[in-house]
Amino acid sequence: MSTYQVTFLPDNVTTAVCGGASLLHAARAAGVDLNSPCGGKGTCGKCAVRIGESSYTDALACRTEVHCDLTVEIPAEARMKKQKVLLSEKQLDEDGLWRRYKMDPIAGKYHLTLPAPDLADSMNDLDRLLKALKKEHGIEAAGISLNCLREFPEAVREGGFEVTVTVVESGGRCEIIGVTPGLDEKPAYGAAVDIGTTTVVCAICDLKTGKVIDREGSYNRQASFGADVITRIIHADENKEGLSELKEAAVSTINSLIEALTERNGLDRGDIVSMVCGGNTVMTHLFFGVTPKYLRLEPYIPATVSFPQVKAADIGIDIHRDAPVLAIPSVASYVGGDITAGVFAIMPGGSEEINLFIDVGTNGELVLGNCEWLVTCSCSAGPAFEGSGVSSGMRAMDGAVDRIEIDRESLRADCGVIGDTKPVGVCGSGLICALSEMLAAGVIDRAGKIRTDKGNDCIRVRDEAEYLLIQSEESGTGSDITITESDVKNLLRAKAAVFAGIRTMLAQVHMDVSDIANVYIAGGFGSNINITDAVQIGMLPDLPEEKYEYVGNSCIKGAILGLLSKEALAAMDGLAGRMTYIELSIGNQFMEEFISALFIPHTDLGLFPSLQQAGQKQGKE
Amino acid sequence: MSTYQVTFLPDNVTTAVCGGASLLHAARAAGVDLNSPCGGKGTCGKCAVRIGESSYTDALACRTEVHCDLTVEIPAEARMKKQKVLLSEKQLDEDGLWRRYKMDPIAGKYHLTLPAPDLADSMNDLDRLLKALKKEHGIEAAGISLNCLREFPEAVREGGFEVTVTVVESGGRCEIIGVTPGLDEKPAYGAAVDIGTTTVVCAICDLKTGKVIDREGSYNRQASFGADVITRIIHADENKEGLSELKEAAVSTINSLIEALTERNGLDRGDIVSMVCGGNTVMTHLFFGVTPKYLRLEPYIPATVSFPQVKAADIGIDIHRDAPVLAIPSVASYVGGDITAGVFAIMPGGSEEINLFIDVGTNGELVLGNCEWLVTCSCSAGPAFEGSGVSSGMRAMDGAVDRIEIDRESLRADCGVIGDTKPVGVCGSGLICALSEMLAAGVIDRAGKIRTDKGNDCIRVRDEAEYLLIQSEESGTGSDITITESDVKNLLRAKAAVFAGIRTMLAQVHMDVSDIANVYIAGGFGSNINITDAVQIGMLPDLPEEKYEYVGNSCIKGAILGLLSKEALAAMDGLAGRMTYIELSIGNQFMEEFISALFIPHTDLGLFPSLQQAGQKQGKE
Repeated sequence: MSTYQVTFLPDNVTTAVCGGASLLHAARAAGVDLNSPCGGKGTCGKCAVRIGESSYTDALACRTEVHCDLTVEIPAEARMKKQKVLLSEKQLDEDGLWRRYKMDPIAGKYHLTLPAPDLADSMNDLDRLLKALKKEHGIEAAGISLNCLREFPEAVREGGFEVTVTVVESGGRCEIIGVTPGLDEKPAYGAAVDIGTTTVVCAICDLKTGKVIDREGSYNRQASFGADVITRIIHADENKEGLSELKEAAVSTINSLIEALTERNGLDRGDIVSMVCGGNTVMTHLFFGVTPKYLRLEPYIPATVSFPQVKAADIGIDIHRDAPVLAIPSVASYVGGDITAGVFAIMPGGSEEINLFIDVGTNGELVLGNCEWLVTCSCSAGPAFEGSGVSSGMRAMDGAVDRIEIDRESLRADCGVIGDTKPVGVCGSGLICALSEMLAAGVIDRAGKIRTDKGNDCIRVRDEAEYLLIQSEESGTGSDITITESDVKNLLRAKAAVFAGIRTMLAQVHMDVSDIANVYIAGGFGSNINITDAVQIGMLPDLPEEKYEYVGNSCIKGAILGLLSKEALAAMDGLAGRMTYIELSIGNQFMEEFISALFIPHTDLGLFPSLQQAGQKQGKE
Repeated sequence: MSTYQVTFLPDNVTTAVCGGASLLHAARAAGVDLNSPCGGKGTCGKCAVRIGESSYTDALACRTEVHCDLTVEIPAEARMKKQKVLLSEKQLDEDGLWRRYKMDPIAGKYHLTLPAPDLADSMNDLDRLLKALKKEHGIEAAGISLNCLREFPEAVREGGFEVTVTVVESGGRCEIIGVTPGLDEKPAYGAAVDIGTTTVVCAICDLKTGKVIDREGSYNRQASFGADVITRIIHADENKEGLSELKEAAVSTINSLIEALTERNGLDRGDIVSMVCGGNTVMTHLFFGVTPKYLRLEPYIPATVSFPQVKAADIGIDIHRDAPVLAIPSVASYVGGDITAGVFAIMPGGSEEINLFIDVGTNGELVLGNCEWLVTCSCSAGPAFEGSGVSSGMRAMDGAVDRIEIDRESLRADCGVIGDTKPVGVCGSGLICALSEMLAAGVIDRAGKIRTDKGNDCIRVRDEAEYLLIQSEESGTGSDITITESDVKNLLRAKAAVFAGIRTMLAQVHMDVSDIANVYIAGGFGSNINITDAVQIGMLPDLPEEKYEYVGNSCIKGAILGLLSKEALAAMDGLAGRMTYIELSIGNQFMEEFISALFIPHTDLGLFPSLQQAGQKQGKE
């Protein structure tokens, strides 16, 4: 078979592919970041590229086969840029988080001085080591890893019977995984990882001080196989190598983060001796190489919610080969370890107050309860808030519109853009804001219909009715950025799912919105939401703004806690087991609530008293 | 670099090697069994081959480099033939052995019928499995192996929620390692392996009935790197790939046995779900890929006596990839797991009688004691009994002289040979017999000096004084088979080491030969020894013959017990820890005993009263 050279611009990266391969495949092979939310099905249109140099053709990369040498330019809007990863000051307060728990990590380093053997004291090396470990540090280790066993006799002698050992706990037993000669004063490090569908974040902790020494985030490389979990499940199921591609994509994303972090901080990758990760149930299945197929088919059964502790080398993570890798347990198919970790880190365990925890992404995961009980559910919000299913949608990265103000007279929009660049699309928080403003300015009615009767240039009908947000000359794509009536419908469905989830869950425990003491908004997307806008469109309940708190990446906080404290790990295991999962697809309640919520803010305005009052006030003025 | 073709006859196997490689290397590469007790140092002369077809040259394979295409004939005496492996009826009584212990193997298969999930019962697959396992079989498994986790959701559905699971115990926790659809009535099997320096034996057991279904033995492929443990330690230490070559040789020996056994019995290798092995400390180190270097250097420290339980795939054993592989713990550097297993299987644990357990190979391993105490030591007998260090020595295989009678007048020897073939050498039991007969016939004196003053054709002086055992025309090698004065000295040292070991150990516990109730002779070599001869030459103590019992391959019996009973495994762990190791190189006692034993039977004839009486009787006649 012939092979051809494909050069990607502006990166100027060239790769060779077999004739007939798609350009998307070539981009993956070249390591070029190309957006493909639908996973290469040709349905989302996000991977549009320009082929040729002087005269060019526009084409979808996933639908274009390579049959000659090509030069391909990836326009700004088709690139997966560096995510706006949450690294604000507010986020770094997790340094102090572990102080709520006993500092007792599953991995640590210990210095030992062994008595040298002689003919009268011919105890074997391992027992000598275990005895000293118990005597000097009170640690009763049960054994040694095979890799370490093969090397430690040399290390013991090289150090003149003075050594530093690395001990990890696995299934309740302590195991020696490293022996270095002499006194090794370098601390042992651990990696806490949040495996998000969109973004992966890794924090490196000093296991002695508990300090987070650095963190780094990037988009999840699985994104090139599809933006949302369902597309990825389908990719894993329908392609022979699909599952292993997705597994490798997650692993290589994490390995790249670890590489960047270790290089920046002058560490060896082998210095990282434990890893705790959190992710939604699909991400965790894919990371462990377990088919997520049955998560998508009714009755939506996960292979497991509690993954086995494995060794880093067994799963391809490039840290100490025998480092334990643990996943925080999930609750159910669509309430994952990220939620367990987040709730553990954020909701004060001892309080009797009723709290609501919300993590909105493709799914809205909701947890309600207090120290005595917890219920949880997942409402399929759809990928609208994550930039998929909306014509101008994109993730929160450079070039994304995240704030919109519509002049009530001219109906022209004034947009805030992330980064020092021209706008190329609208991210989730921008879309919520857009919906709120479009209603307030009368661009849409309460049912989400675009009011083409307005007689304004910003409202027009092309394939369908649409609102012109940004004109081509001001746009980074060279085309108009618009919000169509279909976009509005998709956004309505997304916000309705979240609100209906909250209402259904409250009803199950015979409570009302007013019983909620605090609402914690988690996740990268959550931190960008304007609460007022979200209440205005009827996505979040009408509660005083001071009851809302942005908690940022709560998953990584829980993972850090797990890394630093066995007690925290055990508590998270217990927590996952204690949460009662409510399956929303049983019965009609959720569907009824959903339909009622497909208006802005809701068919029952009584649920939004503050908006009603504001409306009455406005009406009176 | 040029490569050349080397063809080995009579096998007619051809291999390609790089120019400059040794013929021994080529033979290993071709999988041709060539004797090389010294491990390729050119010192033992056992790898003599004939190069060329019509006109040929004699050469040592290990000293001959390949610089052109060659045809090489391996003469009978240089071939490692199939060992005379102990498979007698008496040996097979281990079928009933486990009945002394609770039948409770570390691995087993269980049939389960799971309730099918629905929206109202959406418990994950793994918890569903664990719950049924507990309910139906009372087994509380802690988890599942990563490999099995990746596959079992499909198996569960393929079987319509009826499955057969394989559960193993590892470090006190039960783990599921296999899930097959439906009712799988094939039993789970285990492999018990005796990793001997010379011979490896594997027995396959049905883990449900406890029955040994088949067994097979072969020489240890490590033999081509040296006949004895010391040569192999040196090979591992002095060659870059030495350790891994020896590890692979042991593993491939076991894998070949398993292949033969599974094929013969119509099993899949994956049906074997556990393995328990016993071997001396050096063999165990090599099998696990751990350097045995410090076992050879004073103060002779093993890396460990208790090896970690590993998974078959991690060590290269070709059975179920997640099958636990356990080694029976050693006591000390030169008292290995084979002795722990043997003593456990053979010495009745509850008796107060003092028993002596002897396993004679290169080292003589001795255990003395009763239900309350046990002492053990290792006396370096040297490789004389194993065919090394004796000019005509060989292992007990086809062509080996194992019985000798010397006519008191003519001094001509009448020899018994193993197999239907001409004699090519003398094995250990033959050498003991020879020594006894040579003394009785007056060929040697009590100090081992050959009596050249006899004026008999069978006694002659070439390089040194020698006794002609078999003339060239009757020999399978075409040369005379003789026993030289150096051979006799080597044999005297070997037998003296054993006897001195027994005496030193008895002295340590303030006992005498007469306190011994039973003597158990273990090992392949042991079973061939003629007790009368061994007492005659002063190797074994002068006790009534009925106190002696041949126990054959006691190591495999212990390994089988371990395979079938967790209780037995735990008891062997305890036993290894309870045995007090006596280091014979401390103090002068052993050396004094050794020097006194360098006569036949001994300098102190009072230690051999029955021989003294016989002598007196003879004198009187």
